[in-house]
Amino acid sequence: MKIKKALITAAGRNQRTLPLQTLVDRDGAAKTALAIIIEEALSAGIEQIGVVVQPGDQAVFAVAAGSHAGRLEFLEQREPLGYGHAVWCARGFTGDSPFLLLVGDHVYVSTDGPGSARQLVERATEELCSVSAVQPTHESKLPYFGAVGGRRVTQHPGLYEVIEVIEKPTPTEAEQRLLVPGLRAGHYLCFFGMHVLTPLVMEILGALVHAAGERGGVHLSAALASLARRERFLAFQADGRRYDIGSKYGLLTAQLALGLAGEERDDVLAAIIEVLAQRKV
Amino acid sequence: MKIKKALITAAGRNQRTLPLQTLVDRDGAAKTALAIIIEEALSAGIEQIGVVVQPGDQAVFAVAAGSHAGRLEFLEQREPLGYGHAVWCARGFTGDSPFLLLVGDHVYVSTDGPGSARQLVERATEELCSVSAVQPTHESKLPYFGAVGGRRVTQHPGLYEVIEVIEKPTPTEAEQRLLVPGLRAGHYLCFFGMHVLTPLVMEILGALVHAAGERGGVHLSAALASLARRERFLAFQADGRRYDIGSKYGLLTAQLALGLAGEERDDVLAAIIEVLAQRKV
Repeated sequence: MKIKKALITAAGRNQRTLPLQTLVDRDGAAKTALAIIIEEALSAGIEQIGVVVQPGDQAVFAVAAGSHAGRLEFLEQREPLGYGHAVWCARGFTGDSPFLLLVGDHVYVSTDGPGSARQLVERATEELCSVSAVQPTHESKLPYFGAVGGRRVTQHPGLYEVIEVIEKPTPTEAEQRLLVPGLRAGHYLCFFGMHVLTPLVMEILGALVHAAGERGGVHLSAALASLARRERFLAFQADGRRYDIGSKYGLLTAQLALGLAGEERDDVLAAIIEVLAQRKV
Repeated sequence: MKIKKALITAAGRNQRTLPLQTLVDRDGAAKTALAIIIEEALSAGIEQIGVVVQPGDQAVFAVAAGSHAGRLEFLEQREPLGYGHAVWCARGFTGDSPFLLLVGDHVYVSTDGPGSARQLVERATEELCSVSAVQPTHESKLPYFGAVGGRRVTQHPGLYEVIEVIEKPTPTEAEQRLLVPGLRAGHYLCFFGMHVLTPLVMEILGALVHAAGERGGVHLSAALASLARRERFLAFQADGRRYDIGSKYGLLTAQLALGLAGEERDDVLAAIIEVLAQRKV
């Protein structure tokens, strides 16, 4: 299984200006958030990138992609019918290929070694199936994420066979259906916003989109729950952190994390200390 | 002297996407940098705002201004002939009125009390003349700023009568012509990027623009040097800090400063500490 295509979704209501936001990357270069996400995919061996946008946003995204613009293919989501629907809008781009799926409003910072996308793609290439990146997450954060239940794959630390997927589970649902042996008490495996998916996901999404019709609200988690029943589907505990740049102070936090993980860590620490020292006490 | 007009210059080569950058303001609301600058002007009693942009940038700036778009009048700088030239492009907007001049790539954070723009406008209204905001600046930073020389106005702490203005002076020039009694050793009064100017400045700029022709390179400092010889012209030591969001890590520093000066100081401190704690040592 060779994974050469990536899909970035950026058609959400508040995502229009996010990719244009400027961040200084780990290498000290100022880039748009979109360029940082594209480079995360390229470092995983991706060659073609589809970007799902609202109609009319192509030009501004092409500018934000900078020198990577030539690698992009734009796909339109014409109506806001949910995240699963946005992914399905790219079925013509992904075709019969497996693909790396990323969200356009997250920045990933790996604590060590290769980026999260590369770790995930390597795992999917070895295991020959869909793999979702997950992180152990405290139950207080369940209202924000999709979560999976499953069992550990023996002799592969951090790898799980997915049995169940629930979008934003209640604590009771999580306790009854998503307990994973070996995690800290009160913790569940929640999606990290990064997946490698097989073409079957597009087929499942197609059925869900058709069933939902104009009502929309098609979640990717629903398709992944169905996927787990039909194919081998793994979850992989990603090494790294994700920063939602669309959240309040999300850009600040992402910039701090990039700066502190990068070559200019000392400059960033100095900037923090300087601003802290300026305040009157 | 009533100051009801403000001018924001944003036609510089790298300023095109700066006003669209999102920051969380002191009140906890996410805004574009342009909206923050506009609100700085409005808090000083300004009613009409001219924005000098590159041709074609009007639409993106109108979006970035959000609910303030109706107050804006756009002026075009068709060729990059210098900062003084950009200001002169707005002569039709300012007409016979004095005006507050701000730069589109700076965010101002006052340490205490009213904003820097309001302090400056109040001073100009009392003194009935042009007033530039200045800050004592170490000589190592002279290559980045315009600087003034002059004498203290008795019984008005922080107020100076300007005698000389030099753009980016050398240390020798500064020592010979810009020494101001009472400042710390090695410090000079450098522009803060905020001025209240009388209509005579436009007349002086017109002559300079005409003399420079297509060569361009018209500095505002040259016009202000001439102004000091023809009218009473004061410098006022502004209370506050300015953050150049176009510089590297400038957005980060501006966001930290806004966050730490605002209502959500504790949340911002928590975010900093959380990111610092995440790092492997």
